[in-house]
This record gives sequence, C-alpha cells and structure tokens, in this order.
Amino acid sequence: MTEKRNVKADRLRSFIASAFRACDMPQYNAARMAELMTEADIGGQDGHGVFRLPQYIGRIRAGGMSVDPEIKIISERTATALLDGGNGPGHLVMSRAAELAMEKAKTCGVAWVGARYSNHAGPAFLYARMPLARNMIGLYVAVGSANHMPPWGGTDLLLSTNPISVAIPSNTRPAIVLDMATTVAAYGKVKTAADRGETMPEGWMIDKQGQPLTDPRRSGEGLLLPIGGPKGYGLSLIFGLLAGTLNGAAFGKDVVDFNADPKATTNTGQFVIALDIAAFADVEAFKTQVDEIWEEMKSSALLPGVDAIRLPGERLAATTAERQANGIPIPQALGARLDALADDLGIDRL
Amino acid sequence: MTEKRNVKADRLRSFIASAFRACDMPQYNAARMAELMTEADIGGQDGHGVFRLPQYIGRIRAGGMSVDPEIKIISERTATALLDGGNGPGHLVMSRAAELAMEKAKTCGVAWVGARYSNHAGPAFLYARMPLARNMIGLYVAVGSANHMPPWGGTDLLLSTNPISVAIPSNTRPAIVLDMATTVAAYGKVKTAADRGETMPEGWMIDKQGQPLTDPRRSGEGLLLPIGGPKGYGLSLIFGLLAGTLNGAAFGKDVVDFNADPKATTNTGQFVIALDIAAFADVEAFKTQVDEIWEEMKSSALLPGVDAIRLPGERLAATTAERQANGIPIPQALGARLDALADDLGIDRL
Repeated sequence: MTEKRNVKADRLRSFIASAFRACDMPQYNAARMAELMTEADIGGQDGHGVFRLPQYIGRIRAGGMSVDPEIKIISERTATALLDGGNGPGHLVMSRAAELAMEKAKTCGVAWVGARYSNHAGPAFLYARMPLARNMIGLYVAVGSANHMPPWGGTDLLLSTNPISVAIPSNTRPAIVLDMATTVAAYGKVKTAADRGETMPEGWMIDKQGQPLTDPRRSGEGLLLPIGGPKGYGLSLIFGLLAGTLNGAAFGKDVVDFNADPKATTNTGQFVIALDIAAFADVEAFKTQVDEIWEEMKSSALLPGVDAIRLPGERLAATTAERQANGIPIPQALGARLDALADDLGIDRL
Repeated sequence: MTEKRNVKADRLRSFIASAFRACDMPQYNAARMAELMTEADIGGQDGHGVFRLPQYIGRIRAGGMSVDPEIKIISERTATALLDGGNGPGHLVMSRAAELAMEKAKTCGVAWVGARYSNHAGPAFLYARMPLARNMIGLYVAVGSANHMPPWGGTDLLLSTNPISVAIPSNTRPAIVLDMATTVAAYGKVKTAADRGETMPEGWMIDKQGQPLTDPRRSGEGLLLPIGGPKGYGLSLIFGLLAGTLNGAAFGKDVVDFNADPKATTNTGQFVIALDIAAFADVEAFKTQVDEIWEEMKSSALLPGVDAIRLPGERLAATTAERQANGIPIPQALGARLDALADDLGIDRL
C-alpha cells in the first residue's frame, strides 16, 4: 500500500493557482483552473485533477499551451456555436462552451457548442454537471488527448478513450452523473495504477499479439480495449468525428500524444450540449421522477454476492462529501512530484 | 441450417402495406410503414423488419396501437419539440419527429425532438439516417419496448436495451452509421436466434443466479448483460431517462412488455437529434474528411487472425446493396408465420 497524506481542498486550490501564476497565467484563469482541477480531485477522479498539474505546467513552459488564450466564437447559429480555444487549457475553453450552451438553451431549448484548439480539460463530469444548476441536462464529449486504442481488430493507435459524460438533475437524491470512457479503462486509470505500483486487471489492455497486458509500466506497448468490443470502438469513432472532425479539431492519426509531446499544439476537440428540462417537462416533477427511478434501481433484488445497486453519480457524491470533510489523499509518488514542481517554480510546497 | 427463400423488396413492401390496410390503416400510413419496415429488412436488421409484422398487427387488433394516430406537438421551442404520438406506430411518430428536427436544425443548427405515446419503431438506424440526405448528422435513442436487463448487480428487469444510433454522412464511402444496443446483444437477436434454433454465445445473458444462459428458448428467465458492465448499465439508464422520463414516456417498471401484452398502451419514448453540419464546417470538406477517417481505420495493421477492419455502417451498406439486388431472405419459420397472418387477414400470401 502506498503512503498517502490528505490535503484540504482550499490548500490544494491555492497550490494549483500559485503554480499557474508562477507561469504567468492571469489571475482569473489561474483561479478557474485551480477550482476545476480541485473539483476533479474532490470528486474522486484521481487521474484527472492535480495529478495532471506537472504535465500542464510542462506544456505551458514548453510553449505548447497558452496561459491567456483568446477564446473566440468562429461560427454561430441560435442553438449552436463553434469556439476556437486559442490553444488554452481545456478547462477554460469548455467552461466558456458550457456557459454559452446554457445561455442558448435557455431560449432555444437545446444548444450544442463545439470547440477546436482546446486542450485536455480534466474529467468529463465537470462540464456535463455545469448545466445542472440551471435545471438543465448536460452532455459532454471529448477527443481523448492521446491515442491508446486501435480500431476493432487492428493494432494502429488511431483512437482514444473519447469519454462521454451526461448529468441529469434529481431532487433529493444525488444527481445522476455518468462519466465514462469508451474503453474498459480510461488511460488515466492506467497511469494511476502505474503510480501506485499496482497490476492492471486482464481486459484493460492487450499487446499487439492480442495477449493480455497487465503491467501498467508496459502500457506504451499496449492497446486499450473498447467496451463491448466493436460497440465501444463504434462509440469512440462516432464521438471522435463529432468532437474532433466536425469542429475542425484533431482526430485519428492527427491526435498529438500530450503525454509524450509537451510542445506541439494538440488542437483538442470537445463539445457540450445543454438541454433545458422546462422545454419538455415540469422541472420539479421531472426531478422527483429521477428520484423515483433512483429508488427503483436501488430496490432491485440482487445477484448472489452483490451488496448493493449503485447509480452513476452516487460514488461521485459520496466521495465529494468525504473529501470536502477530510481532504484529498495525495499518494507519496505524486506528492514527491508536486514538491519537485513547487521547488522548480519557486512556490510553497503543498 | 434453416431453409430460406428470398423475397424482392417491392413484393415485401406491398405485402406489409396490404396487411396494415386489412386492419383499416389509412393508405398513407400503411405505405410509410411498409417502406420503413422493408428498409429495416434491406439493411439486414432481421429482428426489426417484417419479423415484427405479426406482433404489430396483433397489437392493432387487440386495440393496443392506433392505425390513424393524431401526432401532436405538445410543447415547442425554436430548437426542441415534444410530440404526443397518439399511440401510433413508432415508425410514423419518429418519422415525423425526424422531419421536425431537420426543419428546426436548418435554422437553429441543432434540434432535439422527443416523443411520448409512441410505440416500437423498428431499428434505430432508420431515424438516425434520415438527416443524412440534408447534410445533417442524426442521433436517435429509444426506450426499448420490453425490459430485459437489471441494474448492474441486480436481477429485477427494470431496464431495456435502450438502443442508440448515430449517422454521419461521408462523400464516396458509405455513411458511418452506428446502431447499437447498450446490451451485449439486442433482444431482437435473441428472438432471431430462437427462431433459427441457434444457441446464444456466453456473455449475452445470465440467469438470476449469475450463471450463463445460452438457450434462447429460456430467454424469459434470463437477464441481458450490458456492454462494459456498469458502463452499459449507466448508458441504458441515461438513455432511458432522456428518451422516456423527460418526454413523459414510460421508463423503468412502467415499461410494458410489448412481447407479452398486446393491449396495454406502451407509452414508448424516443428522441431524435438533427445537427446541421454547415453550422460547424464546410459540408463537402467535412464529408471528405469522414472518407479519410474511413480509410485511416481501414489501413490499420491487424491483430493476428483478423481479416479486415470494419466501419460502423459498412455491413449495412453491403447488405443493402446485396438485398436490393437479390431480395430479402425469409427463414422458413418466419415465412410460415407470415402465411398464417396473410390467411387470417384475407390477403395474398407473401
């Protein structure tokens, strides 16, 4: 078991903001980055929060990502927009996209906002969840920031996990928040396993001979497996075309491996949809129905050996409550990397 | 191997239309039903075309489905609408929904049209593909017409396959058309396997003890398995909330098993999204890029034992071409059921 220490959310936010400030990121942007990255950690997405900070900083310092992007609308209809993210952090670009989508959906009922020249934006749930506060449903899809999956039956790394998140508000129960990769495991999980010195279960990756690969340190030779075989491949392809190609963003062989190359512009593509519940239903009645569906699933009889049914978003809510109270666990290896980063940037250690 | 005979598409269309006409369905509706159901068969969706005719007719005769529904818009914004399908066949309701979505997307860029009081609509690809002719991308999601899946870890049948289809136009290659259930196998495939006297592969279904179930005649005791375990369960739940609950349609325990009960109003929910490519990109350039992605996937090196990479929509295009030329294979058992139906309705046999 790896040693860990717990860090309070406020402290983590301030550390992240300082790190970006030390790279000349404007105050507002640094605060927004810190807020969203900490939200990722609070929500339990350990591979997508502060874990990524050294990499983001590395990219900024190598000239591969802008700290003060001009985020522009380059085409627009009443219910759609395409943003040019100005090669800024995905967090800033997709926050803006979600805001715009919500504004448009308020009148149109639905809006779809895509982005090109964005970057890795952390966990998908951050953006799908934004519309909840306005009684809207949120959907978010991204082209993953490195190709780790071949087309079904192949070995060339042409596809990414291309994650999707959908968030649906409830009344007294936690919101339903699905956040999933189209692969059996997200690549962030592989990195976390490597970091923890753990072995991967069979079924996450195969090698180019089709044999199971379970050592996360060998992940560079491996191929992520899609969920449902050809179905997950199909989903990944579709999401890549919608979040990448349609937006004029990279997809397929054009995707830059942001783990390996800190300098090249990634031209990451994502999109967010906001759907106004009031365009279809009475908002309170709908949210109560979501509660009822929650209870209905929970009340199912169980398969032998299963202790409880879980709902998408349930662990997110529980982890959020726990970490808001007790802080965010930082494994030793990550802590050491963050200390080295702090020393390098001349800021206080975490 | 079951004996089959091939029937030309024109003949099949005319047979289906006659069957509905014999049940007092208006001319236009019967022709539309015949067209879409035959399109399902031509596309190779053997469990969702004429295979369903006896069931549809049974429902109409039992008073469970209207032959002349009043399809009404019950709420509307510039980019959304909610239809009441008047308990008509899903084919008629969702054709109308797709038309309306395309009309709205032409100005708004995107549109989302949901329906309640609809019925089984055949294969999802029919409606996702409609926007292609107008240089739009189509997405379609339905609440399945019978619950065959429990929440992950449970045994109560609270979820359906809740299929999704997405269609993206290309230039010289076949359109990309994903049409998939959120389960490893659609229930239609289970029925087809039973009809053919085939055994199901392990992984399609389990029994309530969690043991593999491979005899399709025992499917009534079985639970369909979701793709990617909890991920497919999550997708099915989300799609059910969006296509069912949000539209005021049935989801969860309220879903009527239309295989078992021909009389009760199913209140089936579906939705369709049309996305206008021109709101984001130059249409011809985009379609050419889709061709390039197609080629890119095709050119991947292969895993040992694999003969070729396939794209979603490739088999659909190939089967369509083949069946347009040679007709639609009707297995003996299905042929006998259709003959009995024809005799019963007093129309010419197929």
